[in-house]
Amino acid sequence: MSKEFEKIERFISLFGPPPAPRGPGDDGCLLPVRGGHLCMTTDALVEGVHFSRKHFSLEEVGHKALATNLSDLAAMGAAPDFWLCALGLPPRLGGRQLEALARGMLPLAQRYKLKLSGGNLTASPVLSITLSLGGWAKKPLLRSGAKAGDKLYIVGVLGEASAGLWGMQRGLRVPKCFLEAQKRPRPWVEAALALAPYAHAAIDVSDGLLQDLGHLCRASGLGARLEGGALPISEALWRCFPKRALSFGLRGGEDYALLLAISPRGARHMEREWAASPWPLSCIGSFIDLPGIWLDGRRMGTRGFEH
Amino acid sequence: MSKEFEKIERFISLFGPPPAPRGPGDDGCLLPVRGGHLCMTTDALVEGVHFSRKHFSLEEVGHKALATNLSDLAAMGAAPDFWLCALGLPPRLGGRQLEALARGMLPLAQRYKLKLSGGNLTASPVLSITLSLGGWAKKPLLRSGAKAGDKLYIVGVLGEASAGLWGMQRGLRVPKCFLEAQKRPRPWVEAALALAPYAHAAIDVSDGLLQDLGHLCRASGLGARLEGGALPISEALWRCFPKRALSFGLRGGEDYALLLAISPRGARHMEREWAASPWPLSCIGSFIDLPGIWLDGRRMGTRGFEH
Repeated sequence: MSKEFEKIERFISLFGPPPAPRGPGDDGCLLPVRGGHLCMTTDALVEGVHFSRKHFSLEEVGHKALATNLSDLAAMGAAPDFWLCALGLPPRLGGRQLEALARGMLPLAQRYKLKLSGGNLTASPVLSITLSLGGWAKKPLLRSGAKAGDKLYIVGVLGEASAGLWGMQRGLRVPKCFLEAQKRPRPWVEAALALAPYAHAAIDVSDGLLQDLGHLCRASGLGARLEGGALPISEALWRCFPKRALSFGLRGGEDYALLLAISPRGARHMEREWAASPWPLSCIGSFIDLPGIWLDGRRMGTRGFEH
Repeated sequence: MSKEFEKIERFISLFGPPPAPRGPGDDGCLLPVRGGHLCMTTDALVEGVHFSRKHFSLEEVGHKALATNLSDLAAMGAAPDFWLCALGLPPRLGGRQLEALARGMLPLAQRYKLKLSGGNLTASPVLSITLSLGGWAKKPLLRSGAKAGDKLYIVGVLGEASAGLWGMQRGLRVPKCFLEAQKRPRPWVEAALALAPYAHAAIDVSDGLLQDLGHLCRASGLGARLEGGALPISEALWRCFPKRALSFGLRGGEDYALLLAISPRGARHMEREWAASPWPLSCIGSFIDLPGIWLDGRRMGTRGFEH
């Protein structure tokens, strides 16, 4: 058995027995088909582009790779079900390090009972992790579904992940929660599934609020009004970076917050149902029948974060 | 709109309108669910590992990336349906080159009406193409389904792809068909779908006949007997490399031939039905209730080709 197969075996074994009816170890995976929509997503993390080994442990890289893909599924209103894992491994990265990567993925994979249904390993000059996730949506959320008058909700906080990156890259001491936000983003899967029935549209904030909200607006043929005072930018962020906090919040990337468009009527039902929401849920504005994004009456550009 | 989105737009536009109900441009893809099994596969090509830009045009790289994934689906008995395309692009690779890559994928994507249902672009030090394909199988073919006494069939030829690589790397003049086999492998999709009803098991030969047949044998708890004279090793290969032809045929990689285990009774039906088979179909041996692979009575190792 070659080293490659050993590495695959080792990797797979961490995720428990193969899913029914058949998973890793064959040329592809097979999954019984159910009602609803199959939802697939794919996303990659590349060393030197999305993370540096200087600042990230392999566990953190593994966590982040799976979390960002889960965030995409959540933004589609899809319940995660299975995943394919394609890895590019530099020669110096051995079996123990591959295991560290897998250990970083394991808690999320277990939490969401994700079936590792296939994958690929190849040599590569730098570490790269390309995941494809599949899930099932009864009522899928598209970017194009928002209506004028819908309220704009957000789950999660803004700006801390980019503040964490900023601090890390400059060797500044920043609150631990900023580093956590950068290294261990939380995918809002449960929130998305709970709120999907009330929502017309959704997107996850990966490239900055303005940029991703801009995508949602363009896809829906609308604009949006934002209330600056309602943005979930933490006091810690304001205190730590008084001059940059708003910019981090509006244009910083990798928040993996969830944006939802919900009708005023839906919002009333939703707020009643989720009066004691376990998630950091805020209403930050509304959709309008006018292009552009307006923050407290001022028109904003939608350029965001590039990795 | 950032350069990345422009590149994505440009890439997607080559493949025609997005699939129903929703494809690229959202966080993930949505597909209506049908009867049967969903079959997913993922495979990557990395510059410097699987190809060099010196020997491969970008069109050839694009073709090969899609062909190898289609070959995996074929080996599962699955009809290809959709794909996700994750690309790692070095800075020097511009829009025109990305288009060349896409043009290489286009003929196969069109031939099999593949829906480009999602993807990801990222910067990367070298070009990498990671595809995930999805298809539907009424009767999926696993590696583990072979029975003792089954005949071993192969669709395709052996050894020419590795002979092509050998020649290319050494600057030798080799027949054009060897280079074609290396650069433009043909996925046996139609053959696989036509023959699947007769087959117990299948695998595609990507790492050499002995290695991949070894996988099939181990998964099925069997061994196999091969008849040397029946192996589809071309006269051109024997003539060009009299001393190496057998080694290329048995251990050379990237043939993307299709191995099938078919019961003697199924084989009779199949041979009647496909008397005038449009594919290069050969019976090269049979499965036996004894571990190991035996070529004309001699036990063979199953070490194959590593990229």
